[in-house]
Amino acid sequence: MMEIKIVKQILAWNEDVSEEVKQLLREKNVCLVNVMGSPGAGKTSLIKKIINDLRGKFRIGVIEGDIAGQIDADTIDRMGIPVVQLQTDGACHIEAMSVQHMLPMFDLDAIDVLFVENIGNLVCPAEFNIGEDLRVAILSVPEGDDKVEKYPLMFETTDALVMNKYDMKPYFDFDDVRVETSARDLNPKIEVFRVSAKNGDGAVDFINWLSDQISRKIG
Amino acid sequence: MMEIKIVKQILAWNEDVSEEVKQLLREKNVCLVNVMGSPGAGKTSLIKKIINDLRGKFRIGVIEGDIAGQIDADTIDRMGIPVVQLQTDGACHIEAMSVQHMLPMFDLDAIDVLFVENIGNLVCPAEFNIGEDLRVAILSVPEGDDKVEKYPLMFETTDALVMNKYDMKPYFDFDDVRVETSARDLNPKIEVFRVSAKNGDGAVDFINWLSDQISRKIG
Repeated sequence: MMEIKIVKQILAWNEDVSEEVKQLLREKNVCLVNVMGSPGAGKTSLIKKIINDLRGKFRIGVIEGDIAGQIDADTIDRMGIPVVQLQTDGACHIEAMSVQHMLPMFDLDAIDVLFVENIGNLVCPAEFNIGEDLRVAILSVPEGDDKVEKYPLMFETTDALVMNKYDMKPYFDFDDVRVETSARDLNPKIEVFRVSAKNGDGAVDFINWLSDQISRKIG
Repeated sequence: MMEIKIVKQILAWNEDVSEEVKQLLREKNVCLVNVMGSPGAGKTSLIKKIINDLRGKFRIGVIEGDIAGQIDADTIDRMGIPVVQLQTDGACHIEAMSVQHMLPMFDLDAIDVLFVENIGNLVCPAEFNIGEDLRVAILSVPEGDDKVEKYPLMFETTDALVMNKYDMKPYFDFDDVRVETSARDLNPKIEVFRVSAKNGDGAVDFINWLSDQISRKIG
C-alpha cells in the first residue's frame, strides 16, 4: 500500500519537528493547546469563551487554522489577542512544521498560552502532534452520539472531551452517557465536560480544569 | 514542500483509477453517487431516506466508509440493501483504489445505483474522485453558515448541496441565504436543497432531482 508508507514518512518527520516545537516552547515557558473538532463543532466559540474567562490570568495567543479565508482570525483579532492565520490551502490538518514556521510571528516572551485552532476535521488532526502540551477535542451534540466509536483516535489521544452545544440536547437524539462511556473505554484518563460555549452553561468546570493545567505547565 | 508533492502523486494515481472505475460502471450501467459531509451531518440518514423513497424504482447498493466500526453498514443491512463496509483504518477519505477493490463484492448486474457514504470530513474527500457520476454534499444547520467559505473545494465540486437538519434552523443562528449565495458564487451549476432527512421535510425536491439524474445516467 503506497499511501500508508508515505503517511508514515510524513508522520515520522512531523514527530521530530513536534519535539523541536515542544523544546522551544518549554524554553519560552509557553503552554500550547491543540483545539480540535468537526467543522462547526464550536472551536472558535470555545476559544472566545476561554479568552474572555482567562485573559486576566494568562497572556493568550492564537493560531487559527483554516483551509481558506480568515473569518475566525478576524474574530480573535477584534478581541485584541495576538493571532496568526494559517491557511493550509487544501490540507486537512495542521502539521508541526507549520507551527514551527509560525512561532517567530509571535512575541513568545509576552505569551503564556498559545491556542491552536486546528482544521475542522475529526480524523487527520489527531494523527499529527504539533508540539502541544494539551489536546482538547470538541464534539457537539448535533453531530450525534456515535462519533467516538467512529473516530476513535481523536478521543483516544485527547486530554479533554468537551461536549459542546449541550443546550441543544433537548432537540437531538444524543446519549451523552454513551459518548462519555465510549470515550473512557478508549482513554481512561480523559476529562469530560458538558458545555454550551455560546451561553456559557457548564463552562466553569472546563475553564477551571484548563486553567489548572496551564498553570501546571508554565509553573 | 514535501507534503504537497506527495499528495499530487497520490492524486494523479487516484485519477487514473477513478477513470477505470467509471468505465467499468458505465459498462455495467450502474450510477455511482458520492455522498459527503462532516461527521454527523446526516449522511446515513439521507441515504436511508433515499433508499425508502427510491427502492421501488432503482436497485440500490451502498458502500459505507468509516475509519472504524460498522454501525452504519449494520443499519443499511437491516433495510435489506446490499452493503459493503470499508474501514479506512485511519485514512480520512475514500480513494478510487478502494472502490475498485470493492466493486467485485457486489453483483453489479443487479444494481442500478451505488451510493458511497464517504468518511465524515469536509476536506479530503472532495480532493479524491472515486469514479462517481454525481456528488452530493451535505451541510447541516448546526455546523454553521460559514462552512462554504471555509471549505470551498467540497462545495465547488459537488452537484448538489443538501442543507440538512433544516427543521433545527429556529434553534441556530444559520443564514441559509448566505450558504446558498456563497455556494452559487463558487459553483453556479449547484443544486441547493433544504431538507430534514429525519422527518422528511423538504426531501421531495431533492429525491425528484436525484431520481432524474440517476435515470439519465443509466438511460
